[in-house]
Amino acid sequence: MRRIKLVIEYDGTAFHGWQSQKNASSVQDVLAAKLKVLLNEAVTVAGAGRTDAGVHAYGQVAAFDTKGDKALDKMVSGLNGLLPRDIRVRSAEVMPPVFDPRRDAMGKTYRYTWIDGDSHSPFWRRYSWWSKQPLDNRAMAIAAKHLVGEHDFSSFRAAACAAKSPVRKMHKVEIRRKGERVTLEIHGTAFLQNMVRIIAGTLFDVGTGKRSPESVGDLLKKKDRKLAGKTAPPEGLVLWQVDYGAIPRLGRKLKGAPEPEDPGDD
Amino acid sequence: MRRIKLVIEYDGTAFHGWQSQKNASSVQDVLAAKLKVLLNEAVTVAGAGRTDAGVHAYGQVAAFDTKGDKALDKMVSGLNGLLPRDIRVRSAEVMPPVFDPRRDAMGKTYRYTWIDGDSHSPFWRRYSWWSKQPLDNRAMAIAAKHLVGEHDFSSFRAAACAAKSPVRKMHKVEIRRKGERVTLEIHGTAFLQNMVRIIAGTLFDVGTGKRSPESVGDLLKKKDRKLAGKTAPPEGLVLWQVDYGAIPRLGRKLKGAPEPEDPGDD
Repeated sequence: MRRIKLVIEYDGTAFHGWQSQKNASSVQDVLAAKLKVLLNEAVTVAGAGRTDAGVHAYGQVAAFDTKGDKALDKMVSGLNGLLPRDIRVRSAEVMPPVFDPRRDAMGKTYRYTWIDGDSHSPFWRRYSWWSKQPLDNRAMAIAAKHLVGEHDFSSFRAAACAAKSPVRKMHKVEIRRKGERVTLEIHGTAFLQNMVRIIAGTLFDVGTGKRSPESVGDLLKKKDRKLAGKTAPPEGLVLWQVDYGAIPRLGRKLKGAPEPEDPGDD
Repeated sequence: MRRIKLVIEYDGTAFHGWQSQKNASSVQDVLAAKLKVLLNEAVTVAGAGRTDAGVHAYGQVAAFDTKGDKALDKMVSGLNGLLPRDIRVRSAEVMPPVFDPRRDAMGKTYRYTWIDGDSHSPFWRRYSWWSKQPLDNRAMAIAAKHLVGEHDFSSFRAAACAAKSPVRKMHKVEIRRKGERVTLEIHGTAFLQNMVRIIAGTLFDVGTGKRSPESVGDLLKKKDRKLAGKTAPPEGLVLWQVDYGAIPRLGRKLKGAPEPEDPGDD
């Protein structure tokens, strides 16, 4: 039995998110179905984290066990031959049997993209939120700095978020502009439900002048979701990368060791 | 009566090219139909050049005459409200009545994009040609240099090309790489039918080692389409920009003045 780690890229436009669904097409279900065809065995696929309907991934991570001995490169090319063109496996790797893509994740990077030209570019329409009003990316960058570090992100979590603690640590929250494209890159240990999209909605308000950059620091202190911006539309969001460090924490499943908390999802 | 110039961006995936078609959806037809709705008058739309089925545009140029006095910004926002999301009007401008988007074009820029990663990125699949084999972009760049200048491009024209002369002048033929994305940027006075796609097909052969960079110079001299590479798939091609210089050539239609030759299309 080998545990395989896959890095997966997908255009989430046509899917009801990553997570398996009863009556809708999810990336997880499509992947499991194609793995079953390819390997001729029943396969359970675990992911590093959920992505909502319409959210994309450049570096989603999944893991599964296989009894077979199919070579890794044949697994990648075989899967890509079976999968729809909006899902692609970028790489496959053998991991220790205790590897858990969700619990072993040491950090995640997301990107959120806005377009603020006079029209919404047809090439970016599936992957960005269009702002008719020009965005003040410098103000957004100043606002973003308030979010770096360890904070209580209660103002930036969905009402339905089930995580026990609202405290998360952000290593990097940056705004960049290239032409009419403004991008948020956010890297943290873990995220609350809808956290990146609520941050994007709030930074959008800063970009359009509805909020001051400084008000974002106050928002953190007030711990009230109702005071933050709206949840930004899913099409602008990409799960960019999941970090595991050099070595998975093999001792994690020792009896009595504390279970890390569910990092929630975004 | 005002002559209006529009700059138009489109994702060509769903269209049978720019040019009006009897039994298929073309960008020109869709645009004319929406102009008629918006302006409440019959409108004839002329384009700077055809693009084949599946080819995209970032800067296609079109012109039409209107009797009405609708403000230009209302024209842009009104059209974008009516057009499908894969066509967008970027700008509108009033031009002298003799402006002809095809004949007055002084140059055009096209881009062709390849992806040579282990898998074809879902985000680029509509806008690139995937090469399973890594592309030697340095060899491609050396080959591309042979095409700069004024040459007989008979080796790089479709059999059906109706242009009288096969001589065209290229100002810039450059290859760039960014990660797994390799891009050809080509800027010339005018192009023969399928010329950019045949050049892309030939440079692909250089990138995969099937041809030497030097052989591309020989190809020009041999003036034989059968010796060049295959016509590259349309989805990698974008009509990037059409140049008109500072002032349209207003004297062009003087009686007796030589008519510039049909620049063909690509």
